[in-house]
Order: sequence, then C-alpha cells, then structure tokens
Amino acid sequence: MAKTKRICLILLRLLAFVATLSAVIVMVSSHERVSLFTVSFEAKYTNSPALKYFVIANSIVTVYGFLVLFLPSESLLWRFVVVVDMVLTMLLISSISAALAIAQVAKKGNNYAAWLPICDSVSKFCNHMTGALIASVIGVIIYMILLLYSIYSVLDPLLLRKT
Amino acid sequence: MAKTKRICLILLRLLAFVATLSAVIVMVSSHERVSLFTVSFEAKYTNSPALKYFVIANSIVTVYGFLVLFLPSESLLWRFVVVVDMVLTMLLISSISAALAIAQVAKKGNNYAAWLPICDSVSKFCNHMTGALIASVIGVIIYMILLLYSIYSVLDPLLLRKT
Repeated sequence: MAKTKRICLILLRLLAFVATLSAVIVMVSSHERVSLFTVSFEAKYTNSPALKYFVIANSIVTVYGFLVLFLPSESLLWRFVVVVDMVLTMLLISSISAALAIAQVAKKGNNYAAWLPICDSVSKFCNHMTGALIASVIGVIIYMILLLYSIYSVLDPLLLRKT
Repeated sequence: MAKTKRICLILLRLLAFVATLSAVIVMVSSHERVSLFTVSFEAKYTNSPALKYFVIANSIVTVYGFLVLFLPSESLLWRFVVVVDMVLTMLLISSISAALAIAQVAKKGNNYAAWLPICDSVSKFCNHMTGALIASVIGVIIYMILLLYSIYSVLDPLLLRKT
C-alpha cells in the first residue's frame, strides 16, 4: 500500500516535470518572423518581460522537478520538499498569471489603451504561447495536488483521522 | 509567551487585512478621464480583465482576512485556516502577477507589439495602480510569513526541534 502510494507520487512528479519541461521548450521555440510591407518583425518570448519570467520560472521548476525525482524515499529532506514545493508552486502560478495577462492582451487587445491584438499576424507564435501556458497549468495543477496531499497527510485539516 | 505569540499573529493578520483592503479601495477609486482632441477617454480598472481579477482576488482575501480575525483561538477550524491561507495566498500572488504584467505594459509599452505606454497620459490612474500593487504585495508578504510560520510550527522542516 505504502509502495503503491510512493509510485503514484513519483509518477505525478514525473508528469509535472514533463509538463513544465514542455512548457519551457514550447515557449522558447516560439519565434515567428513576419514582414509587414518593408518592416520585418520577429515575435519571440524575449520581447516581453512577462514571457521571459514565465520561461525562467518554468526552468527553475523543471530543474527542481528533475532533482527531486532522485531523492531517496527515506531522506530527511522530504520535510523540506514540502516547503520548496509550496514556494515553487507560487512561483509557477505567478509566472502563469503574468504570461496569461500578456497572452490575453495579445489575443484580444485592449480598446481603451489602444493596444491592438497581434495574434492575427503572428498566429504561430500565439499558438505556441497557448500551448506553453496549457502545459504549465497542467504542471501547476499536479504540484497543487502534491501539496494538498502533503498538507492533508501532515495536518489532517478535515479532522478525518481520529486523534 | 503563547499569548504574546498569539497577539503577534493577530496583529499580522490585521495588517494583512488593512493592506488588501487598501489595495481594493485604491484600485477601485482609480478612474481618470482624459480628453484627447475630441475623444474623451476614461481609464479605470474595469477596462482590463487582469485588473478586474486583481480587485476580485483582493476583495475575497479581504473578506476572509476580516472573518478570520474573529475565529476563537481554541477553534478546531485553525487547522483548516492553514489550507485556506495557502490557497488564498496563491490567489493573491496570481492576481498581483497579472496586474503587474499589465501595469508594466502600461508604463513601458511594448515596442515589438506596438503597444504604446499609456501612463504619460493617465498618470493619476497609473499612480493609483502602483499604490494598489504595493499594498497588495505587502498583504501577500504577510500571508507568506503566516504560512511559513504555520508550516514551520507543524512540519519543522529544518529539524530544529528534537524528535
């Protein structure tokens, strides 16, 4: 029983690692060159601080997700992993929100501020951005499940267990 | 000793409540009308989904922060408060990131996407936005301190206590 549970947790972590890794790869590979009349223009993630932050945050979480896979199950560091999980989940959430806010403006524009949507002219770039966001959201959902499981098993907030 | 600690925690929660409340008030009161030639234009938070999300998230955290002040200290609900603290801290972080991403574009614009900065024409609105963001960041820092304290006291991740 305990072994099945551990395999499940490792599989979840592996899935989260794959999700954040694909988010990084998809976002980094998302450059598209368009020529409007005489002006050549390249859309890539480094054009926006929010998207750069997204790539950096996802990279950090990916590296951490990779390292934690090799942590032996009886290590005392697992207590510390809960805290790092929490901090990195917050980092991931904040990077997703920032990228999502920019992606929303890129897609819909903002009439009031006269920011025009750019997704019609750089649709390939926008598709990559959407894909990276979806991958990262999957990653963050898995980390939240892991986190809630850790808290549940330590804190027992719903008082389900007898004390 | 336990009483001093409890007073400190309640004071921190009061401070967080005041911080998120001021973030809401400052953001909601941030409308500015400007006339450019014949076009009259009003900058307000409802113009951007990210800023609306910021106000909603901060309102939720404010209401929760108010209610939790009246929770009796021996209530069993305190175990549950840790989980709600965590979820709402994440909500707050994500709303701050989204608003920050929009505020950054409003301030600096984005050359590549041809989004012009609007803060020169609606500086009062931008100052309000900055103020609300600072207040909300203060709120989220306090919630993170409370959260880390809860986790520290329950999990003892640094193994400082003898087991």
